Amino acid sequence: MIYRGSLYEKLMDNAGSDVYPFHMPGHKRNTYLMPQIDPYAIDITEIDGFDDLHHADGCIRNSERKAAELFGAEETHFLINGCTGGILAAVSACTGPQDTILLARNAHRSAYNALIINRLRPEYIWPRCGKYDIAGGISVAQVEEALRKNRDISCVFITSPTYEGVVSDVADIARVAHLYGIPLIVDEAHGAHMGFCDIFPDSAISQGADIVINGIHKTLPSFTQTALIHVQGGIVDRNRLKKYLSVYQSSSPSYILMGSIDYAMTYLCHEGVRKYAEYKNMLIEVYERISQLKNIRILPYSKERDASKIVVITCGTGMSGQRLYDILRNRYGLQPEMSSPGYVILMTSICDSHEGFERLCEALYQIDDCLDLHDNSAVKGMSYEISDVVLAPYEAGEYKSRCVRIPECEGLVSAEMLYVYPPGIPLVVPGERITKDALSVIMKYKDMGYELHGTCGPDGEYIRVCDGSL
Amino acid sequence: MIYRGSLYEKLMDNAGSDVYPFHMPGHKRNTYLMPQIDPYAIDITEIDGFDDLHHADGCIRNSERKAAELFGAEETHFLINGCTGGILAAVSACTGPQDTILLARNAHRSAYNALIINRLRPEYIWPRCGKYDIAGGISVAQVEEALRKNRDISCVFITSPTYEGVVSDVADIARVAHLYGIPLIVDEAHGAHMGFCDIFPDSAISQGADIVINGIHKTLPSFTQTALIHVQGGIVDRNRLKKYLSVYQSSSPSYILMGSIDYAMTYLCHEGVRKYAEYKNMLIEVYERISQLKNIRILPYSKERDASKIVVITCGTGMSGQRLYDILRNRYGLQPEMSSPGYVILMTSICDSHEGFERLCEALYQIDDCLDLHDNSAVKGMSYEISDVVLAPYEAGEYKSRCVRIPECEGLVSAEMLYVYPPGIPLVVPGERITKDALSVIMKYKDMGYELHGTCGPDGEYIRVCDGSL
Repeated sequence: MIYRGSLYEKLMDNAGSDVYPFHMPGHKRNTYLMPQIDPYAIDITEIDGFDDLHHADGCIRNSERKAAELFGAEETHFLINGCTGGILAAVSACTGPQDTILLARNAHRSAYNALIINRLRPEYIWPRCGKYDIAGGISVAQVEEALRKNRDISCVFITSPTYEGVVSDVADIARVAHLYGIPLIVDEAHGAHMGFCDIFPDSAISQGADIVINGIHKTLPSFTQTALIHVQGGIVDRNRLKKYLSVYQSSSPSYILMGSIDYAMTYLCHEGVRKYAEYKNMLIEVYERISQLKNIRILPYSKERDASKIVVITCGTGMSGQRLYDILRNRYGLQPEMSSPGYVILMTSICDSHEGFERLCEALYQIDDCLDLHDNSAVKGMSYEISDVVLAPYEAGEYKSRCVRIPECEGLVSAEMLYVYPPGIPLVVPGERITKDALSVIMKYKDMGYELHGTCGPDGEYIRVCDGSL
Repeated sequence: MIYRGSLYEKLMDNAGSDVYPFHMPGHKRNTYLMPQIDPYAIDITEIDGFDDLHHADGCIRNSERKAAELFGAEETHFLINGCTGGILAAVSACTGPQDTILLARNAHRSAYNALIINRLRPEYIWPRCGKYDIAGGISVAQVEEALRKNRDISCVFITSPTYEGVVSDVADIARVAHLYGIPLIVDEAHGAHMGFCDIFPDSAISQGADIVINGIHKTLPSFTQTALIHVQGGIVDRNRLKKYLSVYQSSSPSYILMGSIDYAMTYLCHEGVRKYAEYKNMLIEVYERISQLKNIRILPYSKERDASKIVVITCGTGMSGQRLYDILRNRYGLQPEMSSPGYVILMTSICDSHEGFERLCEALYQIDDCLDLHDNSAVKGMSYEISDVVLAPYEAGEYKSRCVRIPECEGLVSAEMLYVYPPGIPLVVPGERITKDALSVIMKYKDMGYELHGTCGPDGEYIRVCDGSL
C-alpha cells in the first residue's frame, strides 16, 4: 500500500514520469538492469556467511578484489557513505594533527571538512582559469613549486576530473609527490567510468595516484551513495586507511548498497566492453551534432576533458545557464544535472539511450533556432577568486563569531563555508578573508536566485564571521 | 540476469531460504511490507522538488517533521549513515577540543571514535554488573558523583537500552545533567520501538534526554543503515548539530534509504497501534512459555528491560551460548542475532509472526529436554573489567607503537581498540592499560573462537601497544 503525501509516494510518482534523466545516478533508473528484486528480501545484517564490510575476509572481500581487478588497483574497498566517507578516511589516514596539506582549492566541501576534523593547515593551489570561466586542471609545475617551498606538506589532494570533466596532470603530479615521499589523493568522484573506454581521459589509478575515490553511482550503474576507494603503492599505511574507513562509515552497512556495487562490477565485467563501444559511438555523434549549433556551444571532449559530461555553453547567447536548464526541463522533459550562470551540465552513462540523446539534440536545435542574439540578459560565468587565508579552517571554528549583513562583510574573516550545491565547492572557506572579489561573486549568486549555503539569518542575508578573539 | 559467484547472487539465494530471522533488520525481510517496487526506479538525486537532506526545507523536512511527531521529539533528522553518523555528529556538536566527556564505558565503538576525532578526554562510568554477568544500567548516583567531582565535563553520553535490553535511569540522569547545564546524549540505537507500546521501557526522548539516536533498522521496518536523531530543549546548539550531520554523512544521500525511513514512519502512523497490540500479546505468550523450561532460562522483561530482545541464558546448563546459537541455526533454521559465552540474543519486532515464535518455543523445548546437566563444558559469562586509563584515546594514537604477543601484554598501554563484533563494545580502549583481568577476558574470547578485532599480526596474535614516547 502507498500512503498519501509521503516522500515514498512522491518517489513512486516520479518513477513513472517521462522526464529523461541527464543527471546522476548513472543507472538512469533503467529498471531492466537488475533482475526483478524486492529490496526487503536482500536487506540483511552480518549473519553467518555474509562477511563484515569492516573486517572483510569472505564474500565482500572477494567482491572488493573483483572491483580492484576491474579498476586495475592493488586494493579496493566498498564505500557505503558515498565519496564523503572515503575522502574523510583518506585525508585522516595520510595526515597527523597540525600537518599541512596541499589542496587544490576547487575541492568538494567534504575535503574541507576532512581538514577541519583533522586540524590541518591548508596550502592551496588554484586551478587555471579555462575558457568560459570553467576551472581548468592543476599543473605539475604548481605542485612542484608548492612542495619545494613548503617541506611540511604531508599529502597532495586534487579533484580530477572536475564536475565539468576537466582532468589534471595526474601522472606527473604523482611522480613529483613521490619524489617528496608523500602520497597523492585524487578525488575522482566524477570519473569512475574513465578506465572503461579510450574516448575518456586516463584514470587516476592507471597514472599512479596513491589513493583514488570513485563515486560509482555518478557514472556507473549502481545505487546513489555507493563509491569505491582504491589504494596502491607503498606510501599509504593501508591499515590506517582501513581503520578510518570504519570510523566514518556505518557499523551497520546496507547490503542493498553493497549488493548494488557488486552487481554493477559484475555487470561491467560481462557487458562493459560491448556497452562502452555503443556508448562511445553515441557520444561521438552527439558531440558532432551539437557542435554545429549556431549560438549554443559545447565544451569539446579530449583526453583532458571527459566526454561523458555534456557541458552546454550559453555564454554570449543572451541566455543564462539557469534559463536553458529550465527550458530543457519544463518544455522538453529533459532533466539536466545542474546549471551554472554560463552553462548547463548533462551527465551521461552507458545506461543512456539513443532516444534520450535524440531528444536532447532535437531540443537544443529548437532552442538554438529561437535564440535572440540581441537579448541583453547575457550573463558571464563567474570564475573562482583567490581569497586570503587568515586562519586554518579548524581555527576559524574555535573563534568567537558574530553575524554580519552580507554587503558589510568585505575584509572580515568568515567562520563558515559558503557554497552553492551543486557543485558544493566552497566560494569561501572558514578562516578566509572575504575579499571584494569574493563578495561580488556571492552577491551575484544571490541576485541570480541561487541558494547560497552557509549563510545565516532567516533569509540567509548574513554571514557568520570571526570576532578576532578566541 | 544474475551472474554466478557474486555477492548479489548470494543475497538472492539467501532471500529464498527458509531460515527464520531472529536478527536485524526489524522488517524481517517481510516482502509484503512495501508495495512491489524496483529500487532503481526510486533511486534519484537532488532533482527539483525532491529537497536536499543537508538543507531540508521541502518534502524531506516534512517527512522529518512527521517522524518528530511520531517520536514526540521537537526536532528529528533522518540518518543514512546509520547511528554511527548520528553519534559522531552528536558528540562533535556538544564538545570542543580537549573537553572531557562523561561516558558510560559500555558504549559502542563509534562513541570512542567520536572521542578520538574530537580529541576528548574520557571520564568513565561503569555499568552495574547484573545477573548472569550481563551489564546493568547506569544509575543517577554515579552520574551525580562524577559531575560533582569533575566540573570540566561538557556532556554525558550513555547507551540505553543495551544490546541485552537493559535501560538506565534516563529521566533522573537528564535532570542531573541539566542542573550542571550540560546535555545528555542517549545512544538508543536498540530502542527505537520503545515509545510505541507500554510493555517496553519508556523512551529516552520522553524522559528528557537532549539528543537521542535511534537505529530504526534494528527494531522498526526500515532498511539497514537508516536511523533517526532527535533533539529537544535549549542546551544543544541545533545549528552546530546540523553542521556536523552534514560532515559525517554522504553529500549524495540515498533516496532508497530515505524513502524507506519515510515509509516506515508512515506505516507506523497507520498500522502501529494494531501491530503493536498483536506483537505485545505474542511476546507475553513467548515469555510465559520459555520461562517454564527446566534448564534454559530467559532474562525477564520489565519497564527496566526491553522485552523485544529475547535473551536466552545458558549459564549453568552445561551449554555455551555459541553452542545454543549453532543448534538453533543449523538444526532448527532459526538465525539468532548473536551469542555471548553465556547467552543468546534473539531480536524481535512487529514484523515477527506467530509461526516464527512457535518455531522458537518448540526448538527451545526440544533442546532443553536433551540437556545433560552433568556436561561440564559450562561457561560462565564474562563481565566487563575496569581498566586503567593512562592516556586519552586520541593521545594513544599519537604515540609510537609496537606489536607485542598477547600473553605478554599485561601492564602495557594499548594503542588499539579491542572488541568482539557484535556487540562492538570495546574490551580495551586505546590509552588503557591492559590489566591482568582484561588480558584474561581477551584470552578467554580467543580460546572460545571469537574473532577479536583490533589485534595485529597474521593470526591476530599480537596487540599494538604504546611505546612510551610520542
